[in-house]
Amino acid sequence: MEPRVSIIERRLKNVKRIVSVASGKGGVGKSLVASSLALHLAKKGYKVGLLDLDLYGPSSHIILGVKDVFPKEEKGIIPPNIHGISFLSIVYFSEDKPSPFRGIDVTNIILELLSITQWGSLDYLIIDMPPGIGDETLDVIRFIKKGEFLAVTTPSKVALGAVSKLLKILKELKLPILGVVENMRMTDSSFIKDELVKMDIPYLGSINFDHGLEDAIGNGDLILKTNFMKELTKCLRKIDF
Amino acid sequence: MEPRVSIIERRLKNVKRIVSVASGKGGVGKSLVASSLALHLAKKGYKVGLLDLDLYGPSSHIILGVKDVFPKEEKGIIPPNIHGISFLSIVYFSEDKPSPFRGIDVTNIILELLSITQWGSLDYLIIDMPPGIGDETLDVIRFIKKGEFLAVTTPSKVALGAVSKLLKILKELKLPILGVVENMRMTDSSFIKDELVKMDIPYLGSINFDHGLEDAIGNGDLILKTNFMKELTKCLRKIDF
Repeated sequence: MEPRVSIIERRLKNVKRIVSVASGKGGVGKSLVASSLALHLAKKGYKVGLLDLDLYGPSSHIILGVKDVFPKEEKGIIPPNIHGISFLSIVYFSEDKPSPFRGIDVTNIILELLSITQWGSLDYLIIDMPPGIGDETLDVIRFIKKGEFLAVTTPSKVALGAVSKLLKILKELKLPILGVVENMRMTDSSFIKDELVKMDIPYLGSINFDHGLEDAIGNGDLILKTNFMKELTKCLRKIDF
Repeated sequence: MEPRVSIIERRLKNVKRIVSVASGKGGVGKSLVASSLALHLAKKGYKVGLLDLDLYGPSSHIILGVKDVFPKEEKGIIPPNIHGISFLSIVYFSEDKPSPFRGIDVTNIILELLSITQWGSLDYLIIDMPPGIGDETLDVIRFIKKGEFLAVTTPSKVALGAVSKLLKILKELKLPILGVVENMRMTDSSFIKDELVKMDIPYLGSINFDHGLEDAIGNGDLILKTNFMKELTKCLRKIDF
């Protein structure tokens, strides 16, 4: 067994719940849901961490407007506090440059990051997962033993096709699936809901396409006031978040 | 040097042009642009191939409605003909099951597929690239020497941030960039155009969000009649496609 796995477990032992926000493909709003979920829980008074592991397209720092704050290195890494959230992103280590890591590096970077970060005690650690079911996704699933999964899709057949694969893998591995949020809805089709019911996966509800959202990107306070947030909150209520 | 690289070159020697459709992140319409570009060129009478290498989320077969046709295996692989397009997708080899390949497998599968496929003589081979700048993207860039790149983004800051990384890598490698299409536009912001001009990358134009598009998914003939297609054609005209 990879020895760092037990180090990771020790590092995360004071984290009550870990919620991994995942999607079958990119562009469905996964990072936005992860960041907004962290904002939502922090606003409710919980101690929250947000870890962006979307190695090839980290965007939580853009969504939350993180600028000029950096993790401290002191017996490991101490995440900075943004909007009441302990925030850490892979972007701090790729320095926002094009960073074409290869397979084994990716695994090592993720392992390293999980091994050395001092989250302290948290009520929730939200993980912005890499999209799809590539290496990094499988690594994170493997290394973080107590993750619960929140999946995001759009109303499109293509997005559902992709998220279904991910959900099948999670089911095969007997991992807890909190449910699926349908994002960027534009019609009242029940296609996604019907398909998820068939798969016996909890459908948490839908979020209508929010034209005002792009203007809120980069500002956590504005994101909390969007329609997107209002409808996401309704979905989250179904799983008592 | 990987010996299969020269095999691949030989296999592709009767392909006049290779257009790799790429994006910095998923969900921006890359596969739709790739499939529609292939349909557009086939309709104009060209001999066209479409190769879906989006390993973790192949969707060209869903977009084109490919059903019950399979490649023939005969001294290699012969792609079936769909809407006048020689069509091959990684999905034929993952059988649409959850298929969590790992780093080295991915490279091998892509190399193998490129080595054994008999495209014959083509005017254009369109490649639906994996999203982002992960291993598979780097492999395809490395193995296909004569690729020209068509990039796709949406109007969002996050999508542009991601595609910029890809464009930087392509520039560093001195690879030909045909230009960038801005997809799913909803406002008349010139943000993407302005940023691309700063980067000295050709902006080919924008495609408005097309609410009718989802209903055309799965039917090549209907896709040719969408507003999406009409606006994509305008963008393509700028590069004489």
